[in-house]
Amino acid sequence: MHLPARTIAHWREQLVASRCSARELVDKALEAAVHGSEAKATFLAVHAEAARASAEAIDLQRRAGVRLPALAGIPISIKDLFDEAGQVTRAGSRVLADAAPALADATVVSRLRAAGAIVVGRTNMTEFAYSGLGLNPHYGTPRNPWDRAESRIPGGSSSGAAISVTDGMAVAAIGTDTGGSVRIPSALCGLTGFKPTAARVAADGCLPLSPSLDSIGTLARSVACCAELDAVLAGETYVPVPSASLEGRRFALPRTQAFEGTDAAVATAFENARRRLEAAGAAFVDLDIPEFDELGRINRTGGFVAAEAWGWHADLIGQRERDYDPRVVTRIRRGGAITAAEYIALQAERRRWIAAVGERLRDVDALLMPTVPVVAPRIADVSATDEAYTSANLLMLRNPTFINFLDGCALSLPCHRPGDAPVGLMVAGTGGEDRHVLAIGSAIEKVLSGS
Amino acid sequence: MHLPARTIAHWREQLVASRCSARELVDKALEAAVHGSEAKATFLAVHAEAARASAEAIDLQRRAGVRLPALAGIPISIKDLFDEAGQVTRAGSRVLADAAPALADATVVSRLRAAGAIVVGRTNMTEFAYSGLGLNPHYGTPRNPWDRAESRIPGGSSSGAAISVTDGMAVAAIGTDTGGSVRIPSALCGLTGFKPTAARVAADGCLPLSPSLDSIGTLARSVACCAELDAVLAGETYVPVPSASLEGRRFALPRTQAFEGTDAAVATAFENARRRLEAAGAAFVDLDIPEFDELGRINRTGGFVAAEAWGWHADLIGQRERDYDPRVVTRIRRGGAITAAEYIALQAERRRWIAAVGERLRDVDALLMPTVPVVAPRIADVSATDEAYTSANLLMLRNPTFINFLDGCALSLPCHRPGDAPVGLMVAGTGGEDRHVLAIGSAIEKVLSGS
Repeated sequence: MHLPARTIAHWREQLVASRCSARELVDKALEAAVHGSEAKATFLAVHAEAARASAEAIDLQRRAGVRLPALAGIPISIKDLFDEAGQVTRAGSRVLADAAPALADATVVSRLRAAGAIVVGRTNMTEFAYSGLGLNPHYGTPRNPWDRAESRIPGGSSSGAAISVTDGMAVAAIGTDTGGSVRIPSALCGLTGFKPTAARVAADGCLPLSPSLDSIGTLARSVACCAELDAVLAGETYVPVPSASLEGRRFALPRTQAFEGTDAAVATAFENARRRLEAAGAAFVDLDIPEFDELGRINRTGGFVAAEAWGWHADLIGQRERDYDPRVVTRIRRGGAITAAEYIALQAERRRWIAAVGERLRDVDALLMPTVPVVAPRIADVSATDEAYTSANLLMLRNPTFINFLDGCALSLPCHRPGDAPVGLMVAGTGGEDRHVLAIGSAIEKVLSGS
Repeated sequence: MHLPARTIAHWREQLVASRCSARELVDKALEAAVHGSEAKATFLAVHAEAARASAEAIDLQRRAGVRLPALAGIPISIKDLFDEAGQVTRAGSRVLADAAPALADATVVSRLRAAGAIVVGRTNMTEFAYSGLGLNPHYGTPRNPWDRAESRIPGGSSSGAAISVTDGMAVAAIGTDTGGSVRIPSALCGLTGFKPTAARVAADGCLPLSPSLDSIGTLARSVACCAELDAVLAGETYVPVPSASLEGRRFALPRTQAFEGTDAAVATAFENARRRLEAAGAAFVDLDIPEFDELGRINRTGGFVAAEAWGWHADLIGQRERDYDPRVVTRIRRGGAITAAEYIALQAERRRWIAAVGERLRDVDALLMPTVPVVAPRIADVSATDEAYTSANLLMLRNPTFINFLDGCALSLPCHRPGDAPVGLMVAGTGGEDRHVLAIGSAIEKVLSGS
């Protein structure tokens, strides 16, 4: 038993019309979260009792005619790096497993609860969110829903977040995205993921990877689900995204930078999507963005992520290095060699880079590219050697990272045919264009789903 | 011939009433700037021809009844680290003496010109603004106007700025203040200096020392002069500071932190000032600010200044280290050892520090202390050994630096008796309290000047 694949709006309608109770939804979610094939590797903690009590409280109020907030009774999962009062925030690590429980909810958790959402549990992730593959040597790696027998990666770092939704353990999931950690698992698992402009969502009570790049986003079944959750996370009143037309829209494809190494499945799905969007009136232009080519050089020493992660972890690594995932700690350690002057220069370079890329994007409605250029590889293949791990990780992160460095916002939308390997289409914009990107994404979703 | 010691308002009245011409003012300023005893060590460039032409243009317009901006015809000096189109920005260094001339005016220079001010020339400074003493081994050190025969330091880094005013080469001077560089020379030379909250004044075209701490301020003859110039530099319309009463004002004295090592002259002048302010109705409270004691530890590796200066200078030092002042380059080099993680931790620590100090200052009107705890030492004494240089420099910077680290604002007001060694009284507030500090400072000035 699990939650069927439906949107937040669908479940809200069911609840409001008393066609199901919050308790029933939560029971389905919990059944899958506890007994599903991926349950153990998906949740690091399941809040069964609290979730059931919250659901019953909501049902009680609904029966009494109490006006309830928008997400009342909707089961949501949260990534293991958000604080919940009384719970240990482990961020998928072993080194924090014996840490003191958090004293208060993270801002986003309070906002979700205030909106009536029911937190089902805490999802597994790449240790400290520092990889795009989703492998976790301590708590296991949940398998991609596609081609499950072959044990493919879920993508990361919000690996459990994605599987909690694909496997019916939650209606939607809250994750973080520093270099693609919301969009990569969304793309590989066939979900819709949204990474907002970082400043939209307060990071209080969220264990940082790299404050210069971290953003808090959502993995769900539709653009509208993401937009509604994003409004809740940002503390805004949700106003449904207006339905945009694609007629006359101009989309840029960074061909030279974002399409290299694309495999056949991704190329076909992306090309099919492009044709359908063109048929709906959108125009595509190839746009060379040479700044994207510079990122490798700019971040050669590990960049913001290594420098800022080292700042947070140095003491802990000094005490407990053996308890870290060796593939994570090696990369955090690189940050120790970055000097203050290099860091300051990196900040200055990023400002120039953002201005230059922003200038190139001035005349287009959005930047479109495959979220990741390949379908989900096998867990065994990417974990076989450090080289395989590193090269797969860099390939996963490549395109999403452009948008984190840009301080922009982006959706990943499923664009494959049902039954095929999941492929994500990224729709990206510059910082602050969140609402525009959601509106464009909603129009694209409408065309691609044929509705 | 030189400009007598008068305020901007005085000269404006004279000009408006046609009791003198701008050309006459500029001629007096230039005469002193070219032939005065300190002329060579005060100005690195004198814009004689341009200043005379600008003055004549203003006189011509005034005679024709053209409405002129507020500073029309007022001779002002600018520190050698502000860009002027066509001039080389040397920042008191030899290594930049052969640099390309600036292509455009710094924002503050444009604003001064737009307000009608006449830029007399570029003032000498500690090389790259990195010391509070004002010594310059390349271009000489202008002597303090007090006890000139003993060759005392002007204070720095805005050394020439102060002497340009004391010696009648300009009505006021524009400087920068990263750790006291406006307030120290103001205090040691008997001028009024204002260091605004850093964010008030745009730093475009100003050669940086430490962008986290740099601020652009003024040295002049009165609080009103500073307030008016500050409005021009900030691009605001100047509204005269309202006259405040001292009745019931509460001033905090950080006795434990800011009074140690005070010499007899400073102690006496400060105590006399306190008594007069008390007689005018102000209350004084001793306030322990233990955070001030932490600054030594927080900045033990050189802090923001070393880290950020190293970022700017590393390449240049690689090529031209021999041409630097050895006492400056040694301290810039310390920044090379600061890691990105230390720098990030320093930023976090500063945020906490600012919040903690702000909390302590919540119930007082201002923080009062000696700007520097001693009167100007002899140039020979502080340049005799590296130890003497270092300890004198740290003593000069100690109190002013509290306010830079606080991201606050402060005035230094003369509080000695005429003829005595100049002593500065610092009136400081938290970030954004500029107008309040200027109003309080204006009331204090009124009491101390007995007007």
